[in-house]
Amino acid sequence: MNDKTVAFLGLGSMGVPMARQLIEAGYAVTVFNRSPGRDAELLAAGAIRAASPQQAVTPGGIAVSMLSNDAALLDVALGEHGFLPRLGVGLHLSMSTVAPETSRQLAAAQAAHGGLFVAAPVFGRPDAAAAAKLWIAQSGAAAAKLRAAPLLAAMGQGVHDFGVEPGAANIIKLSGNFMILAAVEAMSEALLLAEKQGLDRETVADFFGKTVFPCPIYQNYGRLLARRQYRPAGFKLALGMKDIRLVRAVAEELQAPMPVADVLHGKLLSALARGRSEFDWTAIELDAAEQGGVDVRQ
Amino acid sequence: MNDKTVAFLGLGSMGVPMARQLIEAGYAVTVFNRSPGRDAELLAAGAIRAASPQQAVTPGGIAVSMLSNDAALLDVALGEHGFLPRLGVGLHLSMSTVAPETSRQLAAAQAAHGGLFVAAPVFGRPDAAAAAKLWIAQSGAAAAKLRAAPLLAAMGQGVHDFGVEPGAANIIKLSGNFMILAAVEAMSEALLLAEKQGLDRETVADFFGKTVFPCPIYQNYGRLLARRQYRPAGFKLALGMKDIRLVRAVAEELQAPMPVADVLHGKLLSALARGRSEFDWTAIELDAAEQGGVDVRQ
Amino acid sequence: MNDKTVAFLGLGSMGVPMARQLIEAGYAVTVFNRSPGRDAELLAAGAIRAASPQQAVTPGGIAVSMLSNDAALLDVALGEHGFLPRLGVGLHLSMSTVAPETSRQLAAAQAAHGGLFVAAPVFGRPDAAAAAKLWIAQSGAAAAKLRAAPLLAAMGQGVHDFGVEPGAANIIKLSGNFMILAAVEAMSEALLLAEKQGLDRETVADFFGKTVFPCPIYQNYGRLLARRQYRPAGFKLALGMKDIRLVRAVAEELQAPMPVADVLHGKLLSALARGRSEFDWTAIELDAAEQGGVDVRQ
Amino acid sequence: MNDKTVAFLGLGSMGVPMARQLIEAGYAVTVFNRSPGRDAELLAAGAIRAASPQQAVTPGGIAVSMLSNDAALLDVALGEHGFLPRLGVGLHLSMSTVAPETSRQLAAAQAAHGGLFVAAPVFGRPDAAAAAKLWIAQSGAAAAKLRAAPLLAAMGQGVHDFGVEPGAANIIKLSGNFMILAAVEAMSEALLLAEKQGLDRETVADFFGKTVFPCPIYQNYGRLLARRQYRPAGFKLALGMKDIRLVRAVAEELQAPMPVADVLHGKLLSALARGRSEFDWTAIELDAAEQGGVDVRQ
Repeated sequence: MNDKTVAFLGLGSMGVPMARQLIEAGYAVTVFNRSPGRDAELLAAGAIRAASPQQAVTPGGIAVSMLSNDAALLDVALGEHGFLPRLGVGLHLSMSTVAPETSRQLAAAQAAHGGLFVAAPVFGRPDAAAAAKLWIAQSGAAAAKLRAAPLLAAMGQGVHDFGVEPGAANIIKLSGNFMILAAVEAMSEALLLAEKQGLDRETVADFFGKTVFPCPIYQNYGRLLARRQYRPAGFKLALGMKDIRLVRAVAEELQAPMPVADVLHGKLLSALARGRSEFDWTAIELDAAEQGGVDVRQ
Repeated sequence: MNDKTVAFLGLGSMGVPMARQLIEAGYAVTVFNRSPGRDAELLAAGAIRAASPQQAVTPGGIAVSMLSNDAALLDVALGEHGFLPRLGVGLHLSMSTVAPETSRQLAAAQAAHGGLFVAAPVFGRPDAAAAAKLWIAQSGAAAAKLRAAPLLAAMGQGVHDFGVEPGAANIIKLSGNFMILAAVEAMSEALLLAEKQGLDRETVADFFGKTVFPCPIYQNYGRLLARRQYRPAGFKLALGMKDIRLVRAVAEELQAPMPVADVLHGKLLSALARGRSEFDWTAIELDAAEQGGVDVRQ
Repeated sequence: MNDKTVAFLGLGSMGVPMARQLIEAGYAVTVFNRSPGRDAELLAAGAIRAASPQQAVTPGGIAVSMLSNDAALLDVALGEHGFLPRLGVGLHLSMSTVAPETSRQLAAAQAAHGGLFVAAPVFGRPDAAAAAKLWIAQSGAAAAKLRAAPLLAAMGQGVHDFGVEPGAANIIKLSGNFMILAAVEAMSEALLLAEKQGLDRETVADFFGKTVFPCPIYQNYGRLLARRQYRPAGFKLALGMKDIRLVRAVAEELQAPMPVADVLHGKLLSALARGRSEFDWTAIELDAAEQGGVDVRQ
Repeated sequence: MNDKTVAFLGLGSMGVPMARQLIEAGYAVTVFNRSPGRDAELLAAGAIRAASPQQAVTPGGIAVSMLSNDAALLDVALGEHGFLPRLGVGLHLSMSTVAPETSRQLAAAQAAHGGLFVAAPVFGRPDAAAAAKLWIAQSGAAAAKLRAAPLLAAMGQGVHDFGVEPGAANIIKLSGNFMILAAVEAMSEALLLAEKQGLDRETVADFFGKTVFPCPIYQNYGRLLARRQYRPAGFKLALGMKDIRLVRAVAEELQAPMPVADVLHGKLLSALARGRSEFDWTAIELDAAEQGGVDVRQ
């Protein structure tokens, strides 16, 4: 087995810079994307295009997947031209934000072929991916994580381990996105209060980012919220809904009541009902504004 | 008028180190506290004890107040032995966490005597006060803020201005405490999810504090929440309830719906109903745990 | 003491028909209202107009009050021209929807004069009052309720007793209005679901009123909600907010978390922020519609 | 085609009395249940036992289904021994409480065989079924409803039509169960308030059932809630969760935010986490009690 050759499946705004890091780290990368035209930059950098997920992988090799949702991931792995059977005894390094159940299913299916599986979802936006600064949470069998380690080191600035249960890292990723959106909602409510008192939204957001909450989430999202700058989307609201939907599904499965997750889901659903699926997910703020009688027509 | 002499009213866990900073900065400080026995350290450092709020202040001088709630502040300023009339044309520097309406009332009452008022609530715990590292939000008339500036400089690491409306800074303070407790609740829900999946709470909290939320609120509260370490209280739950109650009152007055504030209020109320008023306010987490069927008897 | 002579204070849409019932039952009624011009019908029926609450009552007699809120009631009873001291050892029959604390305060103040107090809030709209079909909840001392009994019999179709604690009946009244508005919100959410599925709102509301919920609240409010017929108001949204605000205050005092009350408060607050204070309180439905993306501009 | 012969699939606490009504109305009924031993009463009344769903039906005949959830219904209709293909051009009268999507799927599958489908979920408990007093909501093609009419007349006291979209009647059923549980939660919160004031729960529930809410839902559930009488279950909490889960799924699909449904789901989830799946669904009340600090260990 030659671990310097990998297949990379899924060339979205995160997948492209992640695959790029692997190329720069000396990997020979074969790429596949379901919709065409996303691989130009990577081909120029030396990647090879595969015509199907199946053709992208080498038996016993390594497949890295970074798809937009569970259905896409399952299709690429287990669909008609899915890579999983051909990968066989190889390693599937699954980096998408998906349900833990999906990881369990894929881990079991790969194991049935004698293969390995690691769930390794990431925190960070495309610019962090392009700088190999992603934060990575991983879970899976020890042998699988050992083999995945060099690739993760090439893509992130740190790998945190959450044990052998394949879905564990997915729960961490979903929890993180939940906490981020909860912070967005809390800021939205606080900024509405300040605005209705006659205060300047940017001054208020800036204050909190410099004092009580000196971390990028509050600083960067605070600025967007203060300005109500929801387009173009850094992370689309429809994708945020997918994540909070998965949070609620896991919460139900594990019998963990999460009232703030319910508030967030209601805000996302309202935004979708009003046609804001392409807005940034911070646009849940508009519901607070509208409920507060602020005129926010954009 | 001699601005190197000030009265300091309210010697709680915040008031003592704040008054201490003023002494160290060269101010002659006369202190008053409603319950006895809190001033030993300050007297040893050179402070003078007054028998009543009225006796503590100098006509035309400066009074700094740091009380635990609106009623206490109103009593110290406007009660039978209140300082406000005697302070007269002087400056009241009001640093308590109170309702904006209380600031408006006190500003108007001081103005009726030709005096000045600044609301200047602070962010930071006692150790930050002891290191003159408080973050301060201020609001009030320009002349009042000008006169207050040296004192604020002696107590904090930065002063942020929110204009001339006396209650504005109080809204900032309340909003900040709301956002902090919202973060606590979000962490509580995320940690419950992780715990029910079998993950270690401390590992999870540590991960988020190092990656997505690298700021003290998430790091320090995350650790307390992970360990369910709610006694002794850093900030008592009963005081947290006071703050969220004020947030809801302001939200109603300004017609700003705040669903997350309602969630937090419900959690605090449940904690009080179960006898947890002396726990740290992060103990709202226990409601999440109980609703999730986790045995948390302490 | 002549119990066939009573003072009636508060001539709103409920007070007028209630006073009318007393006249028809043979009582000599002296009336007072804070704003003029509401007593024409009653004067024509034989009532006498008093120039102040104080002048309306007879020492040792009976005063019936039906005001729109706590402040109005306290002013009429305890204000500059309040009736309470002159009523003295008489009976105050307090029928307004107010806080239990207000009843406790008024009962204590009347007792200080050797007098009696009954809280006797009512369920029913003006047409029920005009037909002496009100449902009445009462609480207070036994002697007070004994003396109040004939008057209550003249105004209602049934009196239900909730003991000697003066505020108890107020809690029943507030609880009832809470449950009514909770039913309104549940219907609003169900009708939104049906509407978005393409079903006819009136058909759906009619079905539930005839089958699962065959009671007037669901039948009548269901019809209004189905038609989004919010003006003219049967019960103004601003008054509904007063009631739910009192519910939340009592819930906090008694440490009883009420998440549905919080949902209702948020809906009412949003409606007020959008300028709907004069709409019927069922207009909280518009928030559900707007959050669901339904165009409901009225 | 002989419409006096029908297959009845699903012999739970509702299915048995419903099938019984058909027998009493003169139908020849062949029964099937997935777990054995539920058909004794029906066999004694003349029913015939089938060994599989497939064997129960007659090609071109009528199949009535009353299963406990979507998976069971889909298995009986479309599973290995499912009746749907053999029923062929016949009529499937589907009376379970299931997702509208399940009805759409079954209607399309039956149509592919040239057959008919009616969704006809019912309101009422087993005693109502035993008295042919069910309320029935129906939706489906006109020809299907025409053929179903005599059977529905034998089982219910009224059939209400919601058009041709197969899933519409399911949305009505789910909405109804949602409104019932919302009433339960509102009563729970009101009774907690009264209890913490020292009032008697039964007196309060009785008052509301006789005055403001004179309908069986409030009267009967009010009594159970007042007494905290949650076992044996009339309708199991786990089944209630299934229904509210479906409500939330439909709400998401139709983009209709339902905050009260989220409150109910949280209460159900908490009850399941505490081991109350076999309690009556009204046992969501215990969460209110616990949050209010009332000792309710059962």
